[in-house]
This record gives sequence, C-alpha cells and structure tokens, in this order.
Amino acid sequence: MPLIPFNIPFLTGDEEPYMLDAMRSGKHCGNHGWGMKCIQHMKEKYGFHEVFLTPSGTAALEMGAMLGGLEPGDEVILPSYTFSSTANAVVLQGARPVFCEIEPNTMNIDPDRIEELVTPKTRMIIPIDYAGIPCELDRIRPIADRHGLTIMLDAAQSFGSRDRDGSWCGSATPLATFSFHETKNIGCGEGGALVVNRPDWVERAHFLQEKGTNRRLVLDGVRSKYGWVDKGSSFLLADILAAMLYAQLQHAEDIAARRKVVTDAYFHLFAPYEKAGHLRIPHPPQGVTLNHHAFFVIFNTSDHRQRFLASLRQWNVNAYIGYVPLHSFDKGRKLGYRAEDLPITEDLGSRVVRLPLYAGLAHDGLPYAVDSMSAVLKELYAE
Amino acid sequence: MPLIPFNIPFLTGDEEPYMLDAMRSGKHCGNHGWGMKCIQHMKEKYGFHEVFLTPSGTAALEMGAMLGGLEPGDEVILPSYTFSSTANAVVLQGARPVFCEIEPNTMNIDPDRIEELVTPKTRMIIPIDYAGIPCELDRIRPIADRHGLTIMLDAAQSFGSRDRDGSWCGSATPLATFSFHETKNIGCGEGGALVVNRPDWVERAHFLQEKGTNRRLVLDGVRSKYGWVDKGSSFLLADILAAMLYAQLQHAEDIAARRKVVTDAYFHLFAPYEKAGHLRIPHPPQGVTLNHHAFFVIFNTSDHRQRFLASLRQWNVNAYIGYVPLHSFDKGRKLGYRAEDLPITEDLGSRVVRLPLYAGLAHDGLPYAVDSMSAVLKELYAE
Repeated sequence: MPLIPFNIPFLTGDEEPYMLDAMRSGKHCGNHGWGMKCIQHMKEKYGFHEVFLTPSGTAALEMGAMLGGLEPGDEVILPSYTFSSTANAVVLQGARPVFCEIEPNTMNIDPDRIEELVTPKTRMIIPIDYAGIPCELDRIRPIADRHGLTIMLDAAQSFGSRDRDGSWCGSATPLATFSFHETKNIGCGEGGALVVNRPDWVERAHFLQEKGTNRRLVLDGVRSKYGWVDKGSSFLLADILAAMLYAQLQHAEDIAARRKVVTDAYFHLFAPYEKAGHLRIPHPPQGVTLNHHAFFVIFNTSDHRQRFLASLRQWNVNAYIGYVPLHSFDKGRKLGYRAEDLPITEDLGSRVVRLPLYAGLAHDGLPYAVDSMSAVLKELYAE
Repeated sequence: MPLIPFNIPFLTGDEEPYMLDAMRSGKHCGNHGWGMKCIQHMKEKYGFHEVFLTPSGTAALEMGAMLGGLEPGDEVILPSYTFSSTANAVVLQGARPVFCEIEPNTMNIDPDRIEELVTPKTRMIIPIDYAGIPCELDRIRPIADRHGLTIMLDAAQSFGSRDRDGSWCGSATPLATFSFHETKNIGCGEGGALVVNRPDWVERAHFLQEKGTNRRLVLDGVRSKYGWVDKGSSFLLADILAAMLYAQLQHAEDIAARRKVVTDAYFHLFAPYEKAGHLRIPHPPQGVTLNHHAFFVIFNTSDHRQRFLASLRQWNVNAYIGYVPLHSFDKGRKLGYRAEDLPITEDLGSRVVRLPLYAGLAHDGLPYAVDSMSAVLKELYAE
C-alpha cells in the first residue's frame, strides 16, 4: 500500500550547487553572499522595504516583537488558533497575549471581534495568514490606525500569496514574518525572515539582529569599533541555509503551481460534500491569490473528524488535526483563559483537518490520496 | 604581500558528503539524523548529560537562562569582558547583569571578586572561558553552593578544553553553552549547543527548545497530541548544519593540534618580551588542557597596543582589539555603570590584542605572520 506523508520538502535541484558554493566560499555565517542574494530578490520581487533573514519564523516573530517595542505589561491581540510561537514572541517580552476569535471561511482572525479586545494597554495586533490565505488587512488596518497599534503579520504560511489589491503578503504591514521551515512552501530546513516596512525601524533592526551591538555601523564605515547598545539576539541565518533558500525562492511560482494541482483536486473532491451540508472547505476572500500552502476541511462534528482521520490512516494517508488552540491548553489556562472563552475557536479547532499537501504530491501519489479520501468520505456519508 | 586574515574556517573535507546526505534525506529541520549523531558523539566523548543543538551560542545562552529559571528582578553575575550575548541572555529574561572584574592571567572572571557582588536577588553566575582557557570552577563552585546559585558556563570558546581534573569544559556545571559560529574551532557557520547536566531539567529543556510545546511527549509516545505548555523558542539547529558540525566534531583533535602549532609559535615569539617586562601573554592555570582557541597579548599601555596594531596592518596581518567591555558601552551605561566601576576590566580591555589564529595558518602563512609580528615588536621595543 502506498504511503502519503503529510509533507515532503520539495527540492528544485539547484540547492546542492548553491550550498556547495556557500561552503567553499569560506564565509558561512549570516548576512553573507547567498543571504544578500535572498534579501535582494525578496525586496525587488515582493516589494518589501527591508528583509532580515533569521534562524526561524519563531525568531522573526521575537525580533519583530522587540522591534515593535513591546514592553512588560503591554497587550497584544492575536488569534488563539495559531502556533505557539506567535504567542511566545509576546510572552518573551513580558507582554500579554489577548486571544481573538477566528472565522470559519479562512480560520483567520475575525476582524469584527478585534476592537472589543482593545484596551489602553494594547500595543500590537498579530494576525496570521492561516493556510496561506491572506487575512483581511483592509478591515484590520482601520482598527490599528484608530488605536495607534502596530500590525505585525505572521505570514509564516503565506509567502507568495497576494492580497486583493495585488500586494504580496508581508509587504503591507509595518512588520511581517515568514517561516522557511521544511514544512513550508519554500524552505531551508530551519529559517525565517522579518520584513521591516518602516524605514525608521531599520537601523535598530540591525542592532537587534547583531546581538544588540552596533556592528552594522562599523560595517557601514560610520564607527571604528562596535559595542553593546541594545538588547537583541543572534537573529541570523547561516549562509549555507541561505543558499538553499535562494534555490527555492527562484522556483516559488513553480512550487505554488504544483501545490495548486493538489488543492484543485481536493476542492473538486470535497466541494460536493460541502454542498450537501456535511462539511466546510476554505473560502478565501474574493480576489486574493493563494500560494496553496494548506487545504483544510471542517467537518460538522469532531466525531466525523476523528472517523475521517482514523479511516484515512488505514489507507496510509497522513492528515493532521491542525493547531490545538492556545487559549485552552496548559499555558493558555495559566494566563487565565478557559476553553469556553473562545467558543468559536474551540469548536472549529475540534472539527478541522489539514490534508497532506506538498509539491511532489502533484506527480506522485495524488490519485491515490484522492481515491483514499473519496472512499473514506463515501463510507462516512453513505446514503 | 601575503594577507593574514584574523580567521578562516577550517574544512575537514567531510562536510560536503555529510551535508549532501542531509539534503537528500528529505528531513532538513532540527533534531534529525545528523543532529542526533552530533548529540550522541558529544555525550559519549565529553561526558555531557544531555545536549541541545541550537541555532547559535547566543540562543544556547537564552535557552539556558530560561531553563535556569531567571525571572524579572533576578541578578546574574558575569564578567563585563565578554560578548554582548552573555549579558543579553540575562536582559531578555528581565533580569539584571551584575558585572564582575577579570584577572590578567586568563582574562577570565576573578573568583576573588564574585562573592562581594552576591545579594539576595542573585540567582546565577555566568563565567566564560575566554580564549578557550577554563575559568577556575573549583573556586567559583563553592561560592555558588554557599548561596544557592546556578552556574551556567559560557563555554562559547572552550569546546575541547579540559579543566585541571581532566573534565571537559561544559561537563561540570549544571548548564553550559557552546558556540559553533564560523569563528570558533569547530563550526557550522551559525550554531551552538546547550549542555544540561541536571537530569531534572531535561524535560523542560525539550519544551523550551520546541517553541514551548510538549511535542517531545508525543514523539516519545507519552501523549497523543501536543500543545502550548511553556514559554520557549525555536532553539533548533537545521540538520544540514548539524551534518557540517558532525564532520568538524570528528576532527576536533586534529583542529586543536593545528591551532597549537600557531599558539606555540606565538608563545615563543612573545615570551621574551614578557620576560623583558613589555607585555603579558596568557597564563592558564597549571594542569588545564587547551583547545588553542585564541592567543592574546596584553601590552603595557594602550598606546603600545595601537602602535602594534597599526604597524601590523602595514604587513597585511589582521589582529583584533577583542571585546569592548560591556559595562562601559551604551547599554552598560544605561544599566547605571560607569567605566571606573570596573577599572581592571577597563584597563585590560584597552591594552589587549587577539592575534590571528586558525587551523589553516599552521601550514599556510605562519612564518610570515610571525616574522611580521617579530619585526613590529623589534621596532616597538628597539633598544
């Protein structure tokens, strides 16, 4: 019986020569040749003002939280339906995550539920683009503007997606973060990036990235020696990983196109079941362009979800339950949350499944995966 | 004229096949095949209880600071003569770095000056092994024991050195951190490790490394799903970098032996000048075994240092001033320190030079480097 894993990183073929070049260059640390090529490419193609490659999407969120000026006592509004890193970036600054409900079309933050959470302590909003679907920035931005809040977009999953106005995800908020973890469309094993679209924040971003030193000013010839000027960390991506990333960046469209073959097949399989009222599939806002990072299905009951997952496992097809909402797991409860505080999130989180999705599936395994799911669905909803 | 850089990363020849294997394995993220080999190797050979590979030495310090339980308001004693990362790991927890003087034989923390800095708020001591020379743990440990303080050794520079009792640096304190930055003996561009020698801290270390989730318990079969249980970050090293690191680890002795050729040459060149009273060279404690990470020279005046550096530059030989003490640079001053608060550190820091040192220098450039320095010294101390 074939095995369909949840994810397989896609290799373009260019990774090896680029990485060997990085290795042989004798400059292996961060912000060297291949890293600079990645940064230049991202700025030119995607319209990002400045890009900092980081060791992970998690690190990018932390760097952004520092750069956004989060201080102990501040509050940050974010969905509970996200990865722990989004909330930890807040917690690590001594600030408090305030969890907002999501809506079922996209599993993204519900813009209608944000403003009621704003207090005098609120400093930042961190929406995420779940499954690569752009969150509704045009509805979030006015709230941020009204209350003087910084938006940091957690675009871990949405590299290469575009919003309704054609802007690339990550280009239209003061801060945005990407993940280049092997589970993402474009990856280098472990890696990430912080996009800084506020020119007045770029200098400090260099300090934060370079362990809180002003080394950048020495490299730029402004100072003759450098020292400790700020907090910070080593928010740098090794050049060998940047070389791998560059290979992937150059094939971003090809990778998205391959993934689209998979999401199209899933759409055609599941749409009739949605029409029959058995489940829901994603409904991105009209006019957005997707990177096809993920495809989710929301069953009508968590029992149906469990039966779908269990049956699919019999076929050796690996689907995944998605996030356990942050507010109702241990650390969320320690922050004072109860499951019933975000009933929509809790409910959706108990019914959603993410299907296997990777570029290679398009030409190896897709018919089997679809046939397996089709058989399971027929069994589940047998007339 | 030849050029002698300050550092060139040494390649053993095994990096490329190992990295290609990691690339082709399809598992590129942290804690996979090559990472596990590194960890196993370090535990077996060096006697570390548990090892966590991290994206940098900086990240290892941060993870250790969290694991050691630092909280806002705590105080941590560390030398001012260190890299900013040592202090930032403290600052990022909301704790306060308390800077201690160093002593000139090793540029390491002066054990006689630690206890006077202990207050009821003190929680941790972070000594560093400057230049790969083990700090005097047998004199620091009783102070920690008397006051219930955790020692986290910043062993960024001392991987492969051994203390007087034969124990490897990193094996004899509750926590220890290594850097595998390209400037270190053993490197992978950007990388590090946290050694956890307290068995009761290992489980939480896994949570901190995995973004504050208990994913580890799922991998171990203890839980069926994982969620958010703690703060934490993505303290993981990409497997491609771990593959590079493994190649280097296997050649650690060879690398140290090559570096020893260089430090021996420097010793023979500079010892007569020390005898004549012009300068000082390192005097490690009797009985330690060095990894020959660095060789420093403390001139009698900062003017002599500047003249030495300037003349050497004429020969295309790159030496380096070392650290700017943390307490007297911008961020240290913001913490309330003045330069005169640590006069010994301030004075030594203004007179020290680190000489170029890398494994490849042993067979390419050493005679030229030594001749250049010899000429400069003769000019500087012409009778």
